Amino acid sequence: MGRTRTYQWDDPAILAEAAGRMAGVDFLRALQTGQLPGPPVNHTLDFTLDEVRPGRVVFSLIPGEEHYNPIGSVHGGIFATLLDSAAGAAVHSTLPLGMAYTSLDLTVKFLRRITVDTGPVRAIGTVVNSGRQTALAQAQLLDATDRLLAHATSSCMLFPVPAAQG
Amino acid sequence: MGRTRTYQWDDPAILAEAAGRMAGVDFLRALQTGQLPGPPVNHTLDFTLDEVRPGRVVFSLIPGEEHYNPIGSVHGGIFATLLDSAAGAAVHSTLPLGMAYTSLDLTVKFLRRITVDTGPVRAIGTVVNSGRQTALAQAQLLDATDRLLAHATSSCMLFPVPAAQG
Amino acid sequence: MGRTRTYQWDDPAILAEAAGRMAGVDFLRALQTGQLPGPPVNHTLDFTLDEVRPGRVVFSLIPGEEHYNPIGSVHGGIFATLLDSAAGAAVHSTLPLGMAYTSLDLTVKFLRRITVDTGPVRAIGTVVNSGRQTALAQAQLLDATDRLLAHATSSCMLFPVPAAQG
Amino acid sequence: MGRTRTYQWDDPAILAEAAGRMAGVDFLRALQTGQLPGPPVNHTLDFTLDEVRPGRVVFSLIPGEEHYNPIGSVHGGIFATLLDSAAGAAVHSTLPLGMAYTSLDLTVKFLRRITVDTGPVRAIGTVVNSGRQTALAQAQLLDATDRLLAHATSSCMLFPVPAAQG
Repeated sequence: MGRTRTYQWDDPAILAEAAGRMAGVDFLRALQTGQLPGPPVNHTLDFTLDEVRPGRVVFSLIPGEEHYNPIGSVHGGIFATLLDSAAGAAVHSTLPLGMAYTSLDLTVKFLRRITVDTGPVRAIGTVVNSGRQTALAQAQLLDATDRLLAHATSSCMLFPVPAAQG
Repeated sequence: MGRTRTYQWDDPAILAEAAGRMAGVDFLRALQTGQLPGPPVNHTLDFTLDEVRPGRVVFSLIPGEEHYNPIGSVHGGIFATLLDSAAGAAVHSTLPLGMAYTSLDLTVKFLRRITVDTGPVRAIGTVVNSGRQTALAQAQLLDATDRLLAHATSSCMLFPVPAAQG
Repeated sequence: MGRTRTYQWDDPAILAEAAGRMAGVDFLRALQTGQLPGPPVNHTLDFTLDEVRPGRVVFSLIPGEEHYNPIGSVHGGIFATLLDSAAGAAVHSTLPLGMAYTSLDLTVKFLRRITVDTGPVRAIGTVVNSGRQTALAQAQLLDATDRLLAHATSSCMLFPVPAAQG
Repeated sequence: MGRTRTYQWDDPAILAEAAGRMAGVDFLRALQTGQLPGPPVNHTLDFTLDEVRPGRVVFSLIPGEEHYNPIGSVHGGIFATLLDSAAGAAVHSTLPLGMAYTSLDLTVKFLRRITVDTGPVRAIGTVVNSGRQTALAQAQLLDATDRLLAHATSSCMLFPVPAAQG
């Protein structure tokens, strides 16, 4: 017997265009406060952007049955997505107007099994190092009691926003 | 103006129970042929298990707008999920009845930007090394022309299925 | 015209035997104070163990010409070795008598070029998470002004010391 | 009672200068054939460059007591160095005159314990993907029977050789 979910999202082109003409921290705050619509993937996986400050960003998610893998727990890719979001957004939050980033890699360590019984989890992304061409961020996945569930690092490449979008 | 998607999934407890009483390759083939229902996460992200043989598994996905991040492309976590599935299932496909696995880590290298224009992508997972307690798998994400879009490695821990499920 | 270096080390069997009959922190402190001889690799690369406390260990090295790669800087493997030592020893420092560890992986991010002009560097290893079967450690490589030069994470597997050594 | 080793190396500035005015594959072949002196680190760890062709490079080492960690086996950093050399040189072997590279990261999976009984090991580096700004390489560490002992991936950043060296 199937379970059903229906959700909505907005045209992501609006976001990509806004990202090109705002400083990172302003763009992320506009996402967090709802001035800009949430990105589609946030609706698909049902996670939210909760906190933004320069160099530190927090996302959260309530593990649900729709996130399950075939072996009885939340799929690691779900929290990889949350951790990648947190790490990338932490880097983004430090970028001035005119600079953009792309993730080069993501290394996730899965430390504890996550199920619907785990309750709400949050991913805290912070910038570890910021260079001229690359930045290194890390992200921690914590439960409501601050137990570490997973850990990630991500390297991002930094580059000027292509001129046409300036 | 929002876009809408509705999807369904089945009780994941059915799968977790079946996983405990089948050899890995038989379990995965039952998923692939539809004898067992697809895991919830496959429905949430809309990806499918296409091929299964011992030590090699293929998943595929058609990138859609619902997979987009805030900066105009498919979120890296989406293909991290596909790559993690492929790597984990490749390991699972080598396990005899009575053995289970859990992923310890996932390292993804993002090589090319993926958008709706990329077209269908597939993740091919293969086992690189298989030990007594751990196994190492890799996964490649390819487009329809076999261009490499992303690459992942994942270490899994192997352990006997807990007796109660046997 | 060649440059020459001569160094000495002690039989490593002494160390492996001692490691099996001491708590981790005691073993590491005996290495640090010189009660036990330094491991051969420390002499080969000329690095030292400077600080030990449960969950945190510091190694240091003075970059020299003998550490150079073909492209004019210290070979990344040299500081990978230092970072791996720091991460592994941090885990070791938390293990009671009767428990041992082995490194499953090492992920190093190279953040800055290191040359003989960099001056002394130190690798600070700390335990990020400690489970029943695995532990996660990280290590930071810093120069004398605490600038981050490189960053590493390492997962270790924990297991009982084989009985014969007990 | 200590054991002693004496070794020599050449001024690494010769190499760095040569690297700037040769295509990668020519530079590596000059290292392999001895037209250019081996880099200092090769002498310190006693490993050699055995094979070079575009996109594939092989290094080898005979594990010795001087490579030992405190727990009775070859230090993981030693083969991390070999694997990093193989991965980096594989990328270098594909670069035309005027292009240089630097390693951004190294991820090593330690699959088997290595001791003096392991016998000669070789690290085979190959290029997995080559982009405009970055390249991804992998390296396998094998024993004389082709058993996989360790596996690594490394991302490199590519850039034009600074003009003064051209």
